Amino acid sequence: MALTPIPFTAEDFRARMRRAALDASAEGLDGMLVTPGPDLLWLTGYQPTAITERLTLLVLGTDADPRLLVPELERPDAESAVGSEVVTISDWRDGDDPYEVAGRLLDPTASYAVSDSTWAMHLLGLQRLLDGAQFYSVTERLPMLRAVKDENELARMAAAGAAADAVFGEIVKTRFSGRKETDVAADLARLLREFGHEQVDFTVVGSGPNGANPHHEAGDRTILTGDMVVLDFGGLMYGYGSDTSRTVCVGEPTSQMREVHDIVRAAQQAAFEAVRPGVECQEIDRTARRVITEAGYGERFIHRTGHGIGMTTHEPPYMVAGEERPTVPGMCFSIEPGIYIPGSFGVRIEDIVTVTADGGKRFNNTDRGLVIVE
Amino acid sequence: MALTPIPFTAEDFRARMRRAALDASAEGLDGMLVTPGPDLLWLTGYQPTAITERLTLLVLGTDADPRLLVPELERPDAESAVGSEVVTISDWRDGDDPYEVAGRLLDPTASYAVSDSTWAMHLLGLQRLLDGAQFYSVTERLPMLRAVKDENELARMAAAGAAADAVFGEIVKTRFSGRKETDVAADLARLLREFGHEQVDFTVVGSGPNGANPHHEAGDRTILTGDMVVLDFGGLMYGYGSDTSRTVCVGEPTSQMREVHDIVRAAQQAAFEAVRPGVECQEIDRTARRVITEAGYGERFIHRTGHGIGMTTHEPPYMVAGEERPTVPGMCFSIEPGIYIPGSFGVRIEDIVTVTADGGKRFNNTDRGLVIVE
Repeated sequence: MALTPIPFTAEDFRARMRRAALDASAEGLDGMLVTPGPDLLWLTGYQPTAITERLTLLVLGTDADPRLLVPELERPDAESAVGSEVVTISDWRDGDDPYEVAGRLLDPTASYAVSDSTWAMHLLGLQRLLDGAQFYSVTERLPMLRAVKDENELARMAAAGAAADAVFGEIVKTRFSGRKETDVAADLARLLREFGHEQVDFTVVGSGPNGANPHHEAGDRTILTGDMVVLDFGGLMYGYGSDTSRTVCVGEPTSQMREVHDIVRAAQQAAFEAVRPGVECQEIDRTARRVITEAGYGERFIHRTGHGIGMTTHEPPYMVAGEERPTVPGMCFSIEPGIYIPGSFGVRIEDIVTVTADGGKRFNNTDRGLVIVE
Repeated sequence: MALTPIPFTAEDFRARMRRAALDASAEGLDGMLVTPGPDLLWLTGYQPTAITERLTLLVLGTDADPRLLVPELERPDAESAVGSEVVTISDWRDGDDPYEVAGRLLDPTASYAVSDSTWAMHLLGLQRLLDGAQFYSVTERLPMLRAVKDENELARMAAAGAAADAVFGEIVKTRFSGRKETDVAADLARLLREFGHEQVDFTVVGSGPNGANPHHEAGDRTILTGDMVVLDFGGLMYGYGSDTSRTVCVGEPTSQMREVHDIVRAAQQAAFEAVRPGVECQEIDRTARRVITEAGYGERFIHRTGHGIGMTTHEPPYMVAGEERPTVPGMCFSIEPGIYIPGSFGVRIEDIVTVTADGGKRFNNTDRGLVIVE
């Protein structure tokens, strides 16, 4: 791709850490505790080579500058991260109790938000040590921390979306009938890399009845003429996620296939048109669901309409009943209604959408009609 | 490889779940809570396509048969796992509070061991709902759950070790000088797959000063004649891990390089000879450390001597000061002392070892002398 993104700077990371501390404070919390994963990468640019049983812990609060505790033997890696120049690093050594060492950086009576994917063993180690402290999940108390993307992040999301669209443009030119789902999935993975993804996260090829299981990946089934095939693929490009779905038909569809595809397409379009700043996330789900329910397929739409996306494929906000938080310009999420006919076929159509002052803007723009493949 | 392992059966999974429940009970706990990850895979054969924010929870206890709660749309996947026939599956739907649904399977006053890699957001969700329950990490209370391997598992570990040895046999025939670390790492990854690994987890190539950082992976540095190069690579074969390190020299070593390599080799050998049933894990660490300390390099051996290995690269027991638990026949772990000279080079020698009635048995058997490469 032509675009080469501007690297994130230490100042970017400083600003993100400050915002996290202030957001925590505004929520009535004393700080935030972050272990390796997307939050740490977003806040500091640091990602250890592996997420393991050895504790790495970033401590943020409004009372002090950011502090990062790392295993001694990972210290050189941590020091080489861009954000480490605005963080005070300390370490612990194999044989120490890492929670006891971490305790010196923590207030035993404070309340902390804890990153969602922090290992239970680490949280339990901290809870045992600090039995007067309170811990809350980031999704519960600070779910919007990474939800609103800045221009640099949006440029990466757009590049990832354009690359995924290029993949779809190529895959529909290939033969489907007579090949296995896993063959098409391998092509999707290869194409994602060819169009610039550094990581492939999923390549769903759900042919015929397999398409009726929304979480089917790709199996040994040979694709047949007459099959509907759900394609749902994505990964990371410049550190940000793509995720798009289209459902194609191998040869001529039946009238039911056309009908179901038309309904899902209408639901996806209606939900997209409902996007504007200030609308509740659940309203976007409700809009898609209404179209499908009125068409008589409500019981066949068995998942939420969408999920936030950024450095992770799934992140808050979720487009789901009960999510009353409003969308805000810069948020990015999927709109992906589906209808699943057990034993027969499934249809899902998915775009990544960002919120602008004027409404939604799609990062995926391939044909949403029912594409016929060979 | 010639060996094709015997598949694990529903009876295997039933026996493992029963043992986990009994072990928990013997520890004074009411049960065990397991989310997706190695514990769930080991206990049930089930691994969702991705580990996400959607709660999947296995509940084990001596009071009831195993129960597995899954997101509704992942239910077909869960039902297709081998172990699911000995588990009662229930589900929750997007829009439900999954913790509330999980609560119906749980005793609000019970004490549970929780899998180490369970996400904090899930543990916090359960803690909020069940504020009279107690939660403990598996590593704290049931660390030996997966530590002792049965024959089927040991056959897989042996196959993974033999494949890693074959990789070393090939890599030393390739040219090192003038190539980048990342080129050698790519060769290691390719060879691991060629020799039967289904997953490559790490391919460390630490040349010259980079070898002095034990967690360096592989970088842009061009390898030079005269460099020591730490190679540390592994992944999964038939679901079980390999992990071996050798340090090679590109051309003639200096006398210091030879000296340091000899010390590490002697430490590794001494630690291996210390392995026998009933010895404390820390004694294996102490043995390796004593050799290195007496040679004057104690401060340069900056990590524990080893880690358990099985379905994960790192798992209890750890060969580290303070680990008083005894080794038991069937346990598998690494013995990997190292010496790291900042700015200059590092040496590490690592084998996976299993405990037998007669002492240790290595799964890695390539030359532990200082191999000279081009």
